[in-house]
Amino acid sequence: MIETRLTRRMGLDHPVILAPMAGVAGGRLAAAVNRAGGLGLIGGGYCDAAWIDAQFGEAGNAAVGCGFITWRLAGAPEVLDHVLERKPRAVLLSFGEVAPFAEKIRAAGVTLICQVQSRADAEVALEEGAEVIVAQGGEAGGHGARRATMTLVPEVADLLAAKGSDALLVAAGGIADGRGLAAALMLGADGVMLGTRLWASAEALVPEGQIEAAMQASGDATLRTRAVDVVRDLPWPEPYDIRVLGNRFTERWHGDLEGLRAARATEGPRWQAAFAAGDAETGNPVVGEAIGLIRSRPPAAAVIETLVRDARALLDGGWRR
Amino acid sequence: MIETRLTRRMGLDHPVILAPMAGVAGGRLAAAVNRAGGLGLIGGGYCDAAWIDAQFGEAGNAAVGCGFITWRLAGAPEVLDHVLERKPRAVLLSFGEVAPFAEKIRAAGVTLICQVQSRADAEVALEEGAEVIVAQGGEAGGHGARRATMTLVPEVADLLAAKGSDALLVAAGGIADGRGLAAALMLGADGVMLGTRLWASAEALVPEGQIEAAMQASGDATLRTRAVDVVRDLPWPEPYDIRVLGNRFTERWHGDLEGLRAARATEGPRWQAAFAAGDAETGNPVVGEAIGLIRSRPPAAAVIETLVRDARALLDGGWRR
Repeated sequence: MIETRLTRRMGLDHPVILAPMAGVAGGRLAAAVNRAGGLGLIGGGYCDAAWIDAQFGEAGNAAVGCGFITWRLAGAPEVLDHVLERKPRAVLLSFGEVAPFAEKIRAAGVTLICQVQSRADAEVALEEGAEVIVAQGGEAGGHGARRATMTLVPEVADLLAAKGSDALLVAAGGIADGRGLAAALMLGADGVMLGTRLWASAEALVPEGQIEAAMQASGDATLRTRAVDVVRDLPWPEPYDIRVLGNRFTERWHGDLEGLRAARATEGPRWQAAFAAGDAETGNPVVGEAIGLIRSRPPAAAVIETLVRDARALLDGGWRR
Repeated sequence: MIETRLTRRMGLDHPVILAPMAGVAGGRLAAAVNRAGGLGLIGGGYCDAAWIDAQFGEAGNAAVGCGFITWRLAGAPEVLDHVLERKPRAVLLSFGEVAPFAEKIRAAGVTLICQVQSRADAEVALEEGAEVIVAQGGEAGGHGARRATMTLVPEVADLLAAKGSDALLVAAGGIADGRGLAAALMLGADGVMLGTRLWASAEALVPEGQIEAAMQASGDATLRTRAVDVVRDLPWPEPYDIRVLGNRFTERWHGDLEGLRAARATEGPRWQAAFAAGDAETGNPVVGEAIGLIRSRPPAAAVIETLVRDARALLDGGWRR
């Protein structure tokens, strides 16, 4: 057990939240994280209402939440209403303007979690009434920006203190084991959000071939790129790009986005088919730098149990060598 | 007191090493860090033997070491001989091939410290006999690369364990206070290297105007760029660029390096004069993301005392809120 303000206020056993990885964090994974004592968030990112419904169905009666890509939600705001009718445990917003949605979420009695990638955005999220701020460093897998977890977390902690805010602070990006959880607590976080570590769990919706490729990789082999959004024709706004495992596709196109745009008619279907089939040499696994710390794919419950136990040992003095 | 393998093996009071910031970490700062119980390294980066001599002179009889930019040393190897004659406490190599220098340093009975920016380079440094590996994340100020401290430190710790190596591991990048030191110990480091935090100390060789600008800044305002090397006509090799505080100069030129090369005859002297004069709107202060955690410029001894005291309190359970 590691008790923090997050576990007390959210009624969790462990200060661990599942990153709502779009298409990867389904209802089964979210429910497994809940059962293990953390908070599961369904990856509702691209606002496909039918998929989100199916995943809430998979989660059964587990009190899970849902995460959105905020700029995408702006184009489909009815999906938020639809999710709020399900009384989710929390809604996470990331990557866009919080203001159009914040009041509705809070008015529904749902915990508002805002993930931010800079001190400036943390300040905005606080003004909009975020109850939990997730400070996400660029070492994270998937979409994000450039600040690092090591500095963003304490800088946001200082901001909360200066504002007299009692919002919770969660660290995201680069955290995959007990060392990362213990470090995040030292930096001033009340808990952690796990993406890549739970991407590589038994319940995640990830093709087998992607897992196999990632299990060999060092964090050195990941990169932040726009190529993976360009090939999918996803209009991600500045300053966001996506961290993935590098492969032949990014070697060819990362530095030639104009060429990729011109070749999208052939490259798009090719990338999508490879991604779905688990061909990691063409379809990039979406993982963060922490992949270099991950060499197994256990059930989510085992991930969380090990992580908390190892962090506990470090916090109890095990850091001494 | 925080005792680690680093303090025991190097005979230090505190597990803190001064980053050998070129031109900034002079003999006075290095000696102050030594007197405060850490290890001071003179920033010999660009291999100016006269400057290095003067700084060893300033350090008096303090047992300080010296850091080099390895690719630069390759063009002036006699400077290493010159420094080794002084029996420095340690020599740090970063940014280039270790092999041509490692044996000479160890044969002189001088501790070989290798700073690395990737797991791959850590492996090479170990093969070359590094006694201390500094794992530097890209949130650091000055030159570096892309991996983040949060993941690089534990990944190198795992590498050391897998190799059965007893080399020491030091975390660098983004560490400016007790939170950072405590977090680094949790990640598996034996100590930390401080750059930006000691850049903003009384003994550092930094123009006053740069300090004033940096004291207002969030880490959001820093960026990694090649513009500052292009304007100085410094042929830094891939994959290294430099993190600085953004300003009008980087706003104009960061995205237009070809234009900057063409304009160097005028932009070069302008940047250099502004840098020396402390005009931070043109000459970029060389600081890391951790600048957002720094709001004062105390003597180095006070920096280290506060940092160690705060880390101690966290390690003793102060992380609980």
